Amino acid sequence: MAEKFAAVDVIVAKRDKRELTDEQIDWVVDAYTRGVVADEQMSALAMAILLNDMTPREIARWTGAMIASGERMDFSTVGRPTVDKHSTGGVGDKITLPLAPVVAACGAAVPQLSGRGLGYTGGTLDKLESIPGWRASLSNEEMLAVLRDVGAVICAAGDGLAPADKKLYALRDVTGTVEAIPLIASSIMSKKIAEGTGALVLDVKVGSGAFMKDEARARALAERMVALGEDAGVRTRALLTAMDTPLGLTAGNALEVRESVEVLAGGGPADVVELTLVLARNMLELAGVHGPDPEEVLRDGRAMDAWRRMIAAQGGDPDAPLPVAPEQHVVTAERSGVLTRLDALAVGVAAWRLGAGRARKEDPVSAGAGIEMHAKPGDAVTARQPLLTLHADDAGRFAASLRDLEGGVAIGDPGTPIDLLPLVIDQIGS
Amino acid sequence: MAEKFAAVDVIVAKRDKRELTDEQIDWVVDAYTRGVVADEQMSALAMAILLNDMTPREIARWTGAMIASGERMDFSTVGRPTVDKHSTGGVGDKITLPLAPVVAACGAAVPQLSGRGLGYTGGTLDKLESIPGWRASLSNEEMLAVLRDVGAVICAAGDGLAPADKKLYALRDVTGTVEAIPLIASSIMSKKIAEGTGALVLDVKVGSGAFMKDEARARALAERMVALGEDAGVRTRALLTAMDTPLGLTAGNALEVRESVEVLAGGGPADVVELTLVLARNMLELAGVHGPDPEEVLRDGRAMDAWRRMIAAQGGDPDAPLPVAPEQHVVTAERSGVLTRLDALAVGVAAWRLGAGRARKEDPVSAGAGIEMHAKPGDAVTARQPLLTLHADDAGRFAASLRDLEGGVAIGDPGTPIDLLPLVIDQIGS
Repeated sequence: MAEKFAAVDVIVAKRDKRELTDEQIDWVVDAYTRGVVADEQMSALAMAILLNDMTPREIARWTGAMIASGERMDFSTVGRPTVDKHSTGGVGDKITLPLAPVVAACGAAVPQLSGRGLGYTGGTLDKLESIPGWRASLSNEEMLAVLRDVGAVICAAGDGLAPADKKLYALRDVTGTVEAIPLIASSIMSKKIAEGTGALVLDVKVGSGAFMKDEARARALAERMVALGEDAGVRTRALLTAMDTPLGLTAGNALEVRESVEVLAGGGPADVVELTLVLARNMLELAGVHGPDPEEVLRDGRAMDAWRRMIAAQGGDPDAPLPVAPEQHVVTAERSGVLTRLDALAVGVAAWRLGAGRARKEDPVSAGAGIEMHAKPGDAVTARQPLLTLHADDAGRFAASLRDLEGGVAIGDPGTPIDLLPLVIDQIGS
Repeated sequence: MAEKFAAVDVIVAKRDKRELTDEQIDWVVDAYTRGVVADEQMSALAMAILLNDMTPREIARWTGAMIASGERMDFSTVGRPTVDKHSTGGVGDKITLPLAPVVAACGAAVPQLSGRGLGYTGGTLDKLESIPGWRASLSNEEMLAVLRDVGAVICAAGDGLAPADKKLYALRDVTGTVEAIPLIASSIMSKKIAEGTGALVLDVKVGSGAFMKDEARARALAERMVALGEDAGVRTRALLTAMDTPLGLTAGNALEVRESVEVLAGGGPADVVELTLVLARNMLELAGVHGPDPEEVLRDGRAMDAWRRMIAAQGGDPDAPLPVAPEQHVVTAERSGVLTRLDALAVGVAAWRLGAGRARKEDPVSAGAGIEMHAKPGDAVTARQPLLTLHADDAGRFAASLRDLEGGVAIGDPGTPIDLLPLVIDQIGS
């Protein structure tokens, strides 16, 4: 078959700061999926996009071409409004786990297609896989059935959804081109739009432990994604939220499941509860669902009930004990005072080093490894009290993890001002 | 073996406009040659280099790393000073053919490692291969023997010379990253330095038919290459020369050999003779050879003698008739007046379309195809006189070739000012 374009001409156009045409974008995404555009050509184009940017029109078309590379799902038979959430990822960010059953218990349907973690931010599927028996892969029919029965499903995105994105994401990961806002926005939104959710709340993290360290870039990404969602008929809103210190008191797979269950039982750390409620209320508002308040379903056990049914529907045993790592190491406070710093990036990398995350996408993760925090910034601490407990399958991992934490934890005199972002920084979109 | 760096970190450094360290450069070039850095990683790095540039130190180190990827040749046993020439390529640029025997006849040794053409500029080896029996590939021993006996050899660069460059050049060709000055300079100079010539004259073309259309970029490239040569102990000088109209009156393989032989016989077009003499005098000066003047060896037949021995030493028959394309098409003048325009790019692409060049590096070229010019800009022409003769193996090629020429040829009233670059624009280096 004669090709409409030559890959080099498309690369050169973007390299020379020209706007790509609709036809060029449609062709290059399709031809890459077909293998006609080679990896080394797409990576050169991705670098040119990263350095020379794309216009909103180019990004929208690119997103559309990625959606067109695969199937589109249809939730119209679910019988309730659908709403999804996406987080750009953070340390201790287990919010999806309590959030999906809370929103389901309030009357919306939550089709949460999630991923595994790469690098120091954990993946939702990795966390849930620490529950004995639970499986991430469902057929489209199974997924619909769980969604219809429980109102929430958290599972792996199937191979049929935006295959161009899957291929491109793996390429970007090894070619230094992950950080391009047009490619990040189109990667996230192509999957969410193809998934067919009616509404979407984006949790865009800002701070040391976030993918976007600075607020201006996080805001630019959020604005771009909201525009892409709205253009495609998905009611979309983004919250910019804090990721300068970990969310909650745990970072690690089974540790985070345990904390999520505490939240669903009506307890849990204040920041995790607050962010769960804020996101749930935004999701319900966008979905147009006016049922019970999220706080009510947490209190009266309906959220916990949805959680148990959701886990059981995917083979998990909600009553089974969670895995515990055999080795523990306690870090104590060197002095009395107030905890002034507990850096998200330091804790994230330290937890990753303990085995909670993977270096390459084919690596396994440890269910039990991770870090428990016994104080958060602003808390008073006394000398020799436990600050952190490190968990690992192998005690040999502690030394490197402790090095990662150096400079990430600090104790000051009482009254020292503490520089922390507000939990919810801003809201973008309708 | 544990690798010193991760490819992504090197890519990200250049992407983020940081200067690469010596160790990063040595590693990435070596690891790419070994296949540890993948094509898609090197192409992303090449695009980042193209868009973010390199410092002189980075370029010098990159060049050194490419040289270190292969063998270095040694001409110390040749018994005369060695000097080479490199042209950045142009339309009708057959200068190497008369130049090498002229310089040899004047007393220097010319080890001319050449390439095949890609795109509309012809390759020296393609031209010589139109001579019956002539072969381009010599072992290092054969090459040295010809150089010692004749004083000049034109042959293909062996696979052992800067293999990193060979691999990288093929990659740049398909990824829109050919045009990076740091990569062009290091590609050319790594081969010339590894070849071991004592002196080098660079012919950097400027104009529509040149790789560098504008003088500022050509000058930047020339300055960079001269610095690289001098740093490596090669006496190096660059001339900026005109490529807005073809050199001589022929563009095509056998057609250019015929014209070169005319020059060696003491005739030939004035511009080809002039550029041959200018380059020869520069080469002899840099080599420190004070023998006969190049004009003298053209006049008295010594240059022709060196040509005949050089061709015969590589199996060619200097007396055999050159191939002639079976189909010809004459373009005549539409009116009387003065030829005001004969654009190098238009003629180059038209000749390429006739079969003189290749679209992909595995394509064959036609020996006979090409374009003969019967007038040059500034010449008076009369209505219906022949302007161009197109030569092709297949008459079906004329239509497309004629379309390429549209706008490339113009006739004006006598006295119309003609906008042409001087043949030698400037000289850069000692």
